Amino acid sequence: VHSKLPWVGTTIFTVMSRMAQEVGAISLSQGAPDFACSPELIDLIAHYMKMGYNQYAPMEGLLALREQIASKTERCYGFAPDPVTEVTVTTGATEGLFAAITAVVRPGDEVIVFEPCYDSYIPAIELCGGKAIRLSLEGETYRIPWQQLKQAITSRTRLLIINTPHNPTGSILRKPDIDQLTAILKDSDIFLISDEVYEHIIFDGEPHYSIAREPLLRERSFIMSSFGKTYHATGWKVGYCIAPANLTKELRKVHQFLVFSTHTATQYALAEYLKKPETYETLPDFYQEKRDKFRQMMAQTRFRLLPCSGSYFQLGSYAHLSDEADAAYATRLTKEYGVATIPVSAFYKEATDQRVLRFCFAKKDETLEKAVERLMRI
Amino acid sequence: VHSKLPWVGTTIFTVMSRMAQEVGAISLSQGAPDFACSPELIDLIAHYMKMGYNQYAPMEGLLALREQIASKTERCYGFAPDPVTEVTVTTGATEGLFAAITAVVRPGDEVIVFEPCYDSYIPAIELCGGKAIRLSLEGETYRIPWQQLKQAITSRTRLLIINTPHNPTGSILRKPDIDQLTAILKDSDIFLISDEVYEHIIFDGEPHYSIAREPLLRERSFIMSSFGKTYHATGWKVGYCIAPANLTKELRKVHQFLVFSTHTATQYALAEYLKKPETYETLPDFYQEKRDKFRQMMAQTRFRLLPCSGSYFQLGSYAHLSDEADAAYATRLTKEYGVATIPVSAFYKEATDQRVLRFCFAKKDETLEKAVERLMRI
Ligand SMILES: CSCCC(=O)C(=O)O
Ligand SMILES: CSCCC(=O)C(=O)O
Repeated sequence: VHSKLPWVGTTIFTVMSRMAQEVGAISLSQGAPDFACSPELIDLIAHYMKMGYNQYAPMEGLLALREQIASKTERCYGFAPDPVTEVTVTTGATEGLFAAITAVVRPGDEVIVFEPCYDSYIPAIELCGGKAIRLSLEGETYRIPWQQLKQAITSRTRLLIINTPHNPTGSILRKPDIDQLTAILKDSDIFLISDEVYEHIIFDGEPHYSIAREPLLRERSFIMSSFGKTYHATGWKVGYCIAPANLTKELRKVHQFLVFSTHTATQYALAEYLKKPETYETLPDFYQEKRDKFRQMMAQTRFRLLPCSGSYFQLGSYAHLSDEADAAYATRLTKEYGVATIPVSAFYKEATDQRVLRFCFAKKDETLEKAVERLMRI
Repeated sequence: VHSKLPWVGTTIFTVMSRMAQEVGAISLSQGAPDFACSPELIDLIAHYMKMGYNQYAPMEGLLALREQIASKTERCYGFAPDPVTEVTVTTGATEGLFAAITAVVRPGDEVIVFEPCYDSYIPAIELCGGKAIRLSLEGETYRIPWQQLKQAITSRTRLLIINTPHNPTGSILRKPDIDQLTAILKDSDIFLISDEVYEHIIFDGEPHYSIAREPLLRERSFIMSSFGKTYHATGWKVGYCIAPANLTKELRKVHQFLVFSTHTATQYALAEYLKKPETYETLPDFYQEKRDKFRQMMAQTRFRLLPCSGSYFQLGSYAHLSDEADAAYATRLTKEYGVATIPVSAFYKEATDQRVLRFCFAKKDETLEKAVERLMRI
C-alpha cells in the first residue's frame, strides 16, 4: 500500500503509553488523569443507560447538552452561542478538529500551525491535500512569532490553528496576543480553529482568553473544547465545537459522515451535570495545586523547568545534562528510570533538537511523588 | 463559505427522525431499535466505569476486545484475524468506513459504489478528492450488475464498496456473487470495503458470506461491523474493522487522528459479553420473527413489499398508488398518517424515480402494530 501519510507512525501517545505499560513505568506521558472522575457523573450515565437512552443521539448532539454548553460559554466568556445553529457535540475534540479541518481545507490550501503542536493537526491538513505552514513558537514561553505570522500569510492561506492553554508547552495567549491576532485576521477571509480543550486549566488567577470573547474573531472561528479534559474522563470521547451558523453547517456535513453521533447517555448525563458551574469553576484551583506541588518536587531533580501557565503539562529541559535526542532520552528514562514522558520533538513534523520532555501532572499526588523520586536519581 | 460538499444537506436519518419527533409520528425511519438492549451489558459498562476505566483506551482498541472479535470471526467464518495487527476497534462502523476510505482514496481515484447505498460513502470519497462511480443495483432483489461492474473498472479504480446484508434494500450476497466478485478482483490491485454491519441479521437459514471467508478477497479488504447493530445499542458507537496488517496500518494512521480512541468501559464490557456466542447467534431468529410479523401485517396495507433476506429494513413500493416522489411521499406519510420512513432516493446521489420507502422493523411488536394500523388507512 502506498501510504497517504508516509511520514506518520503510531501516535506518540500510544507508543509511550504502551512502553510504560510494558516496562511497568510510571506514566506521566499521555495526557490522561490517573485519578477518578466524578462518581455522580458516572451514576448519571449509568442511570440514563438503564432508562434506555442507548440509541443514536441527534447527529449534532443532544439539544439539552448544547443549551448547557451555550450557558456555560455565556457564563465564562460573556457570549452565548445559539445552541441550535452554533454548537455541535463532537466525539472528543480530536473528532471536532478533524471535522473542522476537513470542512474547510481544500487541495493546495495553506494552513498555518505553530509548532510544537498537537500531533493530529498536520495529518488532518495533509489528508485534505492542504499544506501545513509550520512556524515555531519562540523562546521559553513559546510565544507566537507575530512578524513571521504576518509574512507567512498568502492568498492561499485558508486557516490558522491556535491552541490556548497550549499542549505541550503550558503557555497561554493573553490579551495582547488576542489583539495581535485580531489585527492580523480581521480584514482577511482566513478561518481560525481555536483549540481550547484546557480552557478550565489555567493558573495564577489569569483569565482564559477564549475566542468566544472576541466578536471580530469568533465570526470566522471553530472553538473546540473537551469534556474529557474538564471532567477527568478522556475515555468518554465527548467534546464540542462552537462556530457561527455558516461554519457549523459545513462542520456538521462532515461530522455526520465521520461518526454520525456521540455516546447518547453521556450526553444526557453531561447536560445535567453542567448545570452546576462549580463542576468546572473549581478546576483551576484543583490543577494549580498539582502544578505547584509538582514543580516544587521537580525542583529537586536536575531538570530545568520551563514556565507553565495552563494545561496539565509541564516541560522540563535536560539540555544541560545530555546531548541525547529527546525521543531516545524519553525511551531511556522509561526503561531505565521507570518514568514515561513525551519527547517534545514529537510535536514537530520534522524533529528538531529540543531536549525537552513533557510531564503530565494530571496524576494522583502519590503518583507524582513516586515519579519524582525516580527522576531524582538522574 | 464555499462548501466542499455543496450537494449535501443534513443526513436523511436526522431529517426524518426530527420530523417524526416534531409531529409525534411513529418512527420506522432511522435504523435504531426502540426496545431495550441487554441489561447485563449495561451493568457491565456501569461496572467498568465505576472501577475507573474512564481514560483513553488504546487507539487501536482494547486488546481483550480485539481478541474476542478475532474469536467470533473464527467461530462464524472460519478465519481468525490477528488481533494485534488485523483488528481495530472503531467509533461505530461509520467512523471505520470514513477512516478506511480516507486511508486509501487519493485525488483522482475512482471508487465504485452501488446505489442505493448508505449515505456516508460518497461524501467520504469526495472529501478525499475521489470520484464515486455509481452503478445501480438491479431489479427487485437489487443484484450487483456484474457486466457493468467489469466495464466500470479502469486503471484509476482504487476501491470498491459492497454491503451485505444490504441497507436499505435487505438483499444479500450469495456464494455465486462472491465468486463473481473474486473473479473480477483477484488479479487487480483494487481494494474492497465490505460493510457487514448487519452480519447477524440474516434470514431463512441463509449463511452470511462474510469476506472474512474468502482468502482471495480478504487480503485486499476492510471488513466493517458494528456492535450497535448486533447488540441493539446504536448510541454507543462501537464497531470494528478487520483488515490485513498492511491495510490496518494505514487505517490506524487515519483513525488515530480522527477520533483517537473509542469509549473505554464499553470496550471492557463488550470483551466480556462477547464470550457468550449466544448473544449474537440468536439474532437471526430474533429478527426473523420481527420480519415475518411485519411482512404479514404489511400485506394488509396497499404497499407492495419487496423481498427482504437480511438487515432490519423492509422496502415497500407505492408506485402503483401514486406518482409522488418518495421524499414528498415520506414527508406526507409522516405528517398526515403519523408514520416516518426513509425515502429510498436518499440513498442515491442523484434522485431517481424510486417510489419506494424503507421501513425499519427493529421495533417492539406493539410499535410495528400501531404503525401498520396507520398505514392501512392509505
Ligand atoms: C488523544 S491522546 C493524547 C492526549 C493528549 O491530549 C496528550 O497527551 O497530549
Ligand atoms: C447513522 S444513522 C443511520 C442508521 C442507519 O444505519 C440507517 O438508518 O440506515
